[in-house]
Amino acid sequence: MKNYNVGVLGATGAVGQKFIRLLQNHPWFTIKALGASGRSAGKSYKDAANWIESTPIPSAIENILVKNCSASEFEGIDFVFSGLDSSVATEIEGEFARAGIPVISNAKNYRTQPNVPLLVPEVNPDHIELIKTQTFTDDGSGWIVTNPNCVVIPLVMSLRPLFDNFGVKSVILTSLQAISGAGYPGVPSLDILGNVIPFIGGEEPKIADEPLKLLGTLKKDSVEYARFPIQATATRVPVLNGHFLSITAALETPPADIDEVINVLKDWKSPIAELGLPSAPGYPLHVYDDPRYPQPRLHADSENGMQTAIGRVRSSNVFDISYVAMAHNTIRGAAGGAILNAELLVKKGYLN
Amino acid sequence: MKNYNVGVLGATGAVGQKFIRLLQNHPWFTIKALGASGRSAGKSYKDAANWIESTPIPSAIENILVKNCSASEFEGIDFVFSGLDSSVATEIEGEFARAGIPVISNAKNYRTQPNVPLLVPEVNPDHIELIKTQTFTDDGSGWIVTNPNCVVIPLVMSLRPLFDNFGVKSVILTSLQAISGAGYPGVPSLDILGNVIPFIGGEEPKIADEPLKLLGTLKKDSVEYARFPIQATATRVPVLNGHFLSITAALETPPADIDEVINVLKDWKSPIAELGLPSAPGYPLHVYDDPRYPQPRLHADSENGMQTAIGRVRSSNVFDISYVAMAHNTIRGAAGGAILNAELLVKKGYLN
Amino acid sequence: MKNYNVGVLGATGAVGQKFIRLLQNHPWFTIKALGASGRSAGKSYKDAANWIESTPIPSAIENILVKNCSASEFEGIDFVFSGLDSSVATEIEGEFARAGIPVISNAKNYRTQPNVPLLVPEVNPDHIELIKTQTFTDDGSGWIVTNPNCVVIPLVMSLRPLFDNFGVKSVILTSLQAISGAGYPGVPSLDILGNVIPFIGGEEPKIADEPLKLLGTLKKDSVEYARFPIQATATRVPVLNGHFLSITAALETPPADIDEVINVLKDWKSPIAELGLPSAPGYPLHVYDDPRYPQPRLHADSENGMQTAIGRVRSSNVFDISYVAMAHNTIRGAAGGAILNAELLVKKGYLN
Amino acid sequence: MKNYNVGVLGATGAVGQKFIRLLQNHPWFTIKALGASGRSAGKSYKDAANWIESTPIPSAIENILVKNCSASEFEGIDFVFSGLDSSVATEIEGEFARAGIPVISNAKNYRTQPNVPLLVPEVNPDHIELIKTQTFTDDGSGWIVTNPNCVVIPLVMSLRPLFDNFGVKSVILTSLQAISGAGYPGVPSLDILGNVIPFIGGEEPKIADEPLKLLGTLKKDSVEYARFPIQATATRVPVLNGHFLSITAALETPPADIDEVINVLKDWKSPIAELGLPSAPGYPLHVYDDPRYPQPRLHADSENGMQTAIGRVRSSNVFDISYVAMAHNTIRGAAGGAILNAELLVKKGYLN
Repeated sequence: MKNYNVGVLGATGAVGQKFIRLLQNHPWFTIKALGASGRSAGKSYKDAANWIESTPIPSAIENILVKNCSASEFEGIDFVFSGLDSSVATEIEGEFARAGIPVISNAKNYRTQPNVPLLVPEVNPDHIELIKTQTFTDDGSGWIVTNPNCVVIPLVMSLRPLFDNFGVKSVILTSLQAISGAGYPGVPSLDILGNVIPFIGGEEPKIADEPLKLLGTLKKDSVEYARFPIQATATRVPVLNGHFLSITAALETPPADIDEVINVLKDWKSPIAELGLPSAPGYPLHVYDDPRYPQPRLHADSENGMQTAIGRVRSSNVFDISYVAMAHNTIRGAAGGAILNAELLVKKGYLN
Repeated sequence: MKNYNVGVLGATGAVGQKFIRLLQNHPWFTIKALGASGRSAGKSYKDAANWIESTPIPSAIENILVKNCSASEFEGIDFVFSGLDSSVATEIEGEFARAGIPVISNAKNYRTQPNVPLLVPEVNPDHIELIKTQTFTDDGSGWIVTNPNCVVIPLVMSLRPLFDNFGVKSVILTSLQAISGAGYPGVPSLDILGNVIPFIGGEEPKIADEPLKLLGTLKKDSVEYARFPIQATATRVPVLNGHFLSITAALETPPADIDEVINVLKDWKSPIAELGLPSAPGYPLHVYDDPRYPQPRLHADSENGMQTAIGRVRSSNVFDISYVAMAHNTIRGAAGGAILNAELLVKKGYLN
Repeated sequence: MKNYNVGVLGATGAVGQKFIRLLQNHPWFTIKALGASGRSAGKSYKDAANWIESTPIPSAIENILVKNCSASEFEGIDFVFSGLDSSVATEIEGEFARAGIPVISNAKNYRTQPNVPLLVPEVNPDHIELIKTQTFTDDGSGWIVTNPNCVVIPLVMSLRPLFDNFGVKSVILTSLQAISGAGYPGVPSLDILGNVIPFIGGEEPKIADEPLKLLGTLKKDSVEYARFPIQATATRVPVLNGHFLSITAALETPPADIDEVINVLKDWKSPIAELGLPSAPGYPLHVYDDPRYPQPRLHADSENGMQTAIGRVRSSNVFDISYVAMAHNTIRGAAGGAILNAELLVKKGYLN
Repeated sequence: MKNYNVGVLGATGAVGQKFIRLLQNHPWFTIKALGASGRSAGKSYKDAANWIESTPIPSAIENILVKNCSASEFEGIDFVFSGLDSSVATEIEGEFARAGIPVISNAKNYRTQPNVPLLVPEVNPDHIELIKTQTFTDDGSGWIVTNPNCVVIPLVMSLRPLFDNFGVKSVILTSLQAISGAGYPGVPSLDILGNVIPFIGGEEPKIADEPLKLLGTLKKDSVEYARFPIQATATRVPVLNGHFLSITAALETPPADIDEVINVLKDWKSPIAELGLPSAPGYPLHVYDDPRYPQPRLHADSENGMQTAIGRVRSSNVFDISYVAMAHNTIRGAAGGAILNAELLVKKGYLN
C-alpha cells in the first residue's frame, strides 16, 4: 500500500488540530506539510498553534514549519485536508485544486457546487464520480471533495435507511448542539454555562439543504436532489462533544408497525463495510433500545467517535415516527469524516 | 381584604420549600400549618427540612412544628397548597377535600378528574366553575384545584392565542428541561453534567394530554377537550431553572404571513389582567425579536419567574409556524402557578 | 439631597453594563453620559452594546448616544465611573482627572499609586483622605479613587476583623474564581466546561499586594502597607458569579480558641453602618455555621450581591485558623463596590 | 504466566463497575464471580446493575449471576477486589480473609489497621510485607491490602520525591474534587451545577492521616508514620473526573532554588518501573511547564487514567514551594489503583 504525503490547511485551528491528532499513526497518510495564515507562517507548529487537544502535539508535528496556504509551497504533497475558515476557503481551496492538488475539505464553501461531491461514504459513495466532471485542471489531477456540516451527519446517517425503505415525506427536528461545534474560542462560557441558546447562525439552512444533496441521485454531471422539506431548530447546549437531534418524520410508505422501522435501522448494511477503510466504524449506526440512550457524554466517542447512535425510535401521533440521533461533531462530523472520505477516494483509485 | 390562614402539604420537599419562599410576605396568605411525612412530623420545620432555597428559611416558619398530613390536624386553616408526592397525593388531598378544606394542588393525581379544574388563570379561568360540581363534601366547602405539569405552562400559554385566532391542527415539540424539574435530590450530577438525557419518564403523555383539557370548553360538569395531536420528545439538559420548548405547529386557518402570528402573540391580553392578583405577572407573555432569546438562565426569572417567554417565531416549511417558548418550571410551572390559582379563587369568591 | 449627573467610561463592556444595571433607579446618581471606544462612539447605546445582562437595557439608557472617552465631551457630568480596560485606563482616567472630573474606577491602573486611595468603605474609609494630596488639578477638583481586584474583596473583608483583633502573620489561599471575572467574551466554554484551569494571568500578584495597601495605615500623603506574606493560587472553575476562597492564616496573637475567632467575625461592626449609604449591605459580613455554606450559586446574590460570606471557620493544625470566604465578583467585587465608594465620597463631602 | 480467577465484591456499585470495565481484557486476571447485596443476588449482572460506564457491559460479564458477598459462594476464586460500601466492608472483607481469600480493597475500613498495608506501588511497595503479620488465617492464605482515598493519590505521589529529597515539614492544601468521587447517584445536580460545595464529609481527616502511613517506615509488624501536619480543605466542583489539589509545602531542607524542586520531580524514578506490571503507567508522574496545565478534563485520562499530573511548581513567599497536582479519582484513585496493587502482589509472589 502506498503511503501518502498529506498536507493540512488551516492547521492551527480547532479542525486542523483534530486532523493532526486523528492522523497520528494513520496507516496510509503521513502529514508532511501544514498551512495556516500569514500570522503563523514561518513558525514551528508548536509555536504557532494554541493547542487545545488533550493529548500532546505529536512529536513528528511539533517542529514542522507552518507554511502559507499557497499551493506553490506544497510541492510533493499528494493531497490536502482543509479545515480552512469559510472566509478564505473558496479562494485557497480553488487555488490548490487548480494547481493539481486534490482538496478534501471540511469547509462549507464548495458543498453546494453542482459537480463537487458532498460525500459521506456510508450514504452516497457513488457521488464520488462527480469528480470526473470537475474542471479545475485539464488533466483532472486537481479536484475538491467536501463533507457535510457536523449536525447533518446524524440526520443523514439515520435517514439513509428510512429513505431507501419507506421514502421520506417531511422532517421536523430540533438539534441540541455541542460547544465544540463552534470552534475555538467559539462560544463564550458566559453565554452557555447552565443555559440553552436557541439559535445558531447559518445552521438551519444547511440542515435543510445538505441532506437533500446527500440523498440525491447521481446524474451525468450533477446530483438530482431529494425532495422533501426539513424544518430545523438549532440550539446550543452546554455539552462538550456530540450533536444530538430530536427528529420526527413523515414517511412516503408508512411502516406496518414501529418494529419494522427499528429492524430497518438495525439491519442496515453500510455500502463500504467490506472495503477495509482504516477509519470506518465497525458499526456506523447503532440503535439503542434503552430509552435513556444515546447520551452525548457517554456515547459520542463510540467507535472512536465515528458512530451515529440512534434511540427512542417510536411511533408519533402526528407524523409516522420519532427518534433521536447523535454523533461526534468534530470527529465523525468534521475531521474524521474527511479522513474517511480520503480513505474511500484512495480505495476507489482517485488518489495515487 | 381578609387574610387567609394557609397550610402547605409536602412542606419539606422541593415544591413545598418553594411555596414557603414565595408566600413569604404574601399580602393575602399567611402560612399557619405545615404538613409532611411521619418522619418529619413533630419536628420544627428547620430541623425537618433539608432547605435548598438560596434565601434562608423565613423566620416566621423555621420554628413551626411540622404536622402529619392529616386534615384533623389542620383546623382553622382556610385552605392548603399541596406539593405532595404523587405516591400519596390521591389519598391525602382527597381526605382534606372531604374534610372541607380546599386543596390547591401541584400534584398530578387529580388533574385528569373530569370535575377537577386543571387551571392556568390566564388560559382557562372559566374552568374554575367545575368546582361547583365536586362532591367531596355535601356543602361544597371542600374541593380540589390543580395546576398543570411544569413543562405544559410555556406550551399552553403560547398556544392560547394561537388556538383562539387560528385554531391548532397539530403540534410537534422537543423540550429541553431544567434539572430542578426533577425535585431534590432529583437528577444525579453524574448523569447530567455536560450531557443530554433523551428521556424523562412519564412526561410526554402529560405534555400530550394536559393542554387539551386546558384549551378545552367548559360544559355542564366537565371539560370537552380540545382535539389535536401533540407529539413531544422530553429531554433533560444541564440547566438550573427554565423549561425550554422548541415547537412547530400546524394551524387550522393558516395566517397570511408570520407577522400576523407575531402580532397575535404580542397583542394578546390576559383575561385576568385587570383583577389585581398579587402574583400575576404584568406581562404574562413576552415575545423576543432577538433570535438569541429567550434563554433559560437569562430569562427564567423575568416577572419574578411568572412570565412565559417566546422567541424565534417564524414560518416553517413543513408546518405553518415554529417558535420556542420558555418558563420557570418551579415558579410559574409549580408553586407560583398554584399561588396564582389561589389568588384567582379568592377573587372569584371561592375562598372566604 | 443633590442628584448627581454621572458618566460611565467603558460603558459597553461587561463592567460598564453592570454599572448601568446597578445605577438604574439609584436614588442619588443618574447616568447622563456614556463613553466607549471610537468603534461605538456616535451610536445609540442599544446599537453599540452587546448587552449581556439578564434584564433589558434601561429605557432611559438605550437611546443615549455613546461618546468617545474624552473629558471634553463630558461637560456637566459631576463624576464618572470607569469600567475601562487596563490597556487604556491610565491615559483616559488621567485625562478626566486633569480636566477636573473625578474618576471612581474599577480599573487596576492607579490602584498602586501612592496617593490614590484603594478603597473599600467597610475596610479603610479613612484612606479617602489621600484624595487631598492628589495633584491632577490645581484646585483639587479632579481626582481618582479605585476599588480592588474582585477576588481581593472576600479576602480583605474577612481579614479586617482578624487583622484588628489578632494581627495577621501570613496567609495561604486558593481561589476558585467565577467565569464572569474574565469579562465578555472572556473564558471560552471549551476551556472551562466541566473543568478547572489552574492559572489566571496576573491575578496572584494582585491578591498578594492589594490587601496590604487596604489594611495599611494612612500617613501624610501615602499609605504604609501592612506587612505579611500572602501566597495565592488562583484557579478558574465553571461557576457563573462568586469568587470563592479557601484561606489559612497564621495570626500574630493566636486566639484562645476557635470560638473567639468566630465571635470576632460575627460581632464585627462596619465603620459605615450608620451612614445610610444606599448600596451598603445591611450585613456586609455573614458567617455561616453550616459547613456546606457558603456556596457561590446560592449566596453570591445575598444582600444584592454586596455581602461577603464566610464559612467553615476552624482551627488549623498547621496555621492558626482556616476558613472559606466568598463574594459576588462583578457586583461587590467591581461595579457595586465602585458605586459604594461613590456613595461614601458623597457622604464625606468629596463630591458636590 | 498463571491466569487468576478473580471476584469483585460490591460489583453493582460505581467502583465495582469500574473494576469490571478495567479488568476487561486484563492479561492476568479474569472475573469469575461477582458479589453484591441480597437485593441483587441471584440476578444476572445486566439485570442487577444500573450500568453507568460509557462502554457496554462486557459480554463475558452481563450474564454472570450475582452472588451474595459470602466467602462460601466464592470457591475457586484466587482473590477478590472489593468496592464494598464502608457500611459493610469491615464484616465482609474480614470474612473473606478469614476464609483464606485475599482481599484487595478500595474500602476505607482496614486502611488504618496496623498490619494492613495501605499500598500505592510507586510510593511504598515495601509495605507489602505487612501481609506476613496478618492473622486472618493460620496459614497466611487470607489477608487484606488496601489503597488510599482517591484524593490522597495526587498528594502522596507528589510528596514521595519531595519527602525523600527535602523532607516535609508541613502541608496546606485545598482540593477541588470531581463529582464521580461521591459514587452514584452521589452528588445531586441541583447542588453542584455551576457551584462549589465547600465541604465533603469525612474527607479532610483522611487527607491528613493516610499520607503519613503511606510515607511511613516499615517496622516489624507495623508502619511508623511520617510526622508532619497536613491541613486540608476539601471542596466539590462541577468536574466529572480528576481530583485537583492546590498544595503549599514547607520543607525540612529548603531547596537551593525552584529548579532543584522541579528537577527532583521530573527525574523521579518509580520503584516499580522495571516490573512490567500491565496497569503501571509509563510515566506515573508528569510535570507540566505550561502554567495552564494540568486540567482535569484534559489530563485525567492520561496514561489510561493512571498518571498523576503536576503543574505550577513555584516558590512560595510563605512556605517553600507551591504546586498543583491532579489524578483520575475513580481509576488511579480507586479501581485502577487496586488492580495495580494486585499486579504488584502477583509479581512479589503473594498471589499464586
